[in-house]
Amino acid sequence: MASRSTQILEAAARVIARRGVRGLRVEELAAEAGVSTGLIYYHFKDRTGILRHTLEFINDRAERYTTARDPDAPPLSPREELEHTLLLELQEKEEVRENSAAWGELRSTAVFDAALREDLARATLVWVREVAALLGRVHPRAPAVTLTSAAERLTALLEGLSMRWLSGGLPVDRARELLKGAIAVELAGLDRG
Amino acid sequence: MASRSTQILEAAARVIARRGVRGLRVEELAAEAGVSTGLIYYHFKDRTGILRHTLEFINDRAERYTTARDPDAPPLSPREELEHTLLLELQEKEEVRENSAAWGELRSTAVFDAALREDLARATLVWVREVAALLGRVHPRAPAVTLTSAAERLTALLEGLSMRWLSGGLPVDRARELLKGAIAVELAGLDRG
Repeated sequence: MASRSTQILEAAARVIARRGVRGLRVEELAAEAGVSTGLIYYHFKDRTGILRHTLEFINDRAERYTTARDPDAPPLSPREELEHTLLLELQEKEEVRENSAAWGELRSTAVFDAALREDLARATLVWVREVAALLGRVHPRAPAVTLTSAAERLTALLEGLSMRWLSGGLPVDRARELLKGAIAVELAGLDRG
Repeated sequence: MASRSTQILEAAARVIARRGVRGLRVEELAAEAGVSTGLIYYHFKDRTGILRHTLEFINDRAERYTTARDPDAPPLSPREELEHTLLLELQEKEEVRENSAAWGELRSTAVFDAALREDLARATLVWVREVAALLGRVHPRAPAVTLTSAAERLTALLEGLSMRWLSGGLPVDRARELLKGAIAVELAGLDRG
């Protein structure tokens, strides 16, 4: 069973994904989580505390669903692993949609509100490093700076595609196809060295 | 001199870029534009009308600053033209920053509010076609679908990079460098056919 604080963060991700960060009121979050506002303040101190922990929560959750593998399936090649991990961020599943919407909201809130910037920059950096490591498994001799640039582009593209998908302008299958195409051109770029 | 309605839209773009769509109140917009709320309702009917016209306004303005060329400069090659047009969306200039922030806000608002979706999808399509046409000038024999996919990726990447830039996680020069790299890998992809 989820702990009380996890229960609050799950509710926060749901509320943010449904109405945005600016639609998040602590009273409403308390109702959604089925706890008192006092308990929320006890665990997270203030609104910024809630947002920072929600960011961490959705990152952990994305980490989980993008690295989940069927234990009976044959092992993936490095290239399949890379594609698999990135494409799992674009799925018509409630959890993924909610996670992407909440991430996009936290990113766009940071344009106006400096409180989240540092956490967001750190989370982005971790994500870029993970994708650079996956690219490095496909191209073990590519220089680190080249891998990092490709990873920065693929993750920023994924954010851009997610926003188009969630704002209704791009079907999820088309978004996946475009991302797959980007992986192909980036890998070809690494091939040329 | 700008007409009254342009004056209102300039103020709307400023307010949205400063505090977000959800921070836009008509009274405040009236004060920022130096007009009455009645005049705003007269020109734009309601809040959705204001947002839709602001979207159009920032698109026209982006069109203007990305196609502006020094008349005395030597003509650009198709590839230079492509790079120039895309890179002008990432500049440390008040007008560009404001435009990008307002665009990102309208995009992220559309995740929660369907009213803007159609206009946004149409504006994105126009933008994708323009970039596909520029790519087609570099690669006149590339199939239209290939050019469109590359243009969708480059514009979605530009949106993703802009959000990172505006939310403080990515210096503008690095964002430009990454975009230039993406143009290079996409063009190399078209070279291979």
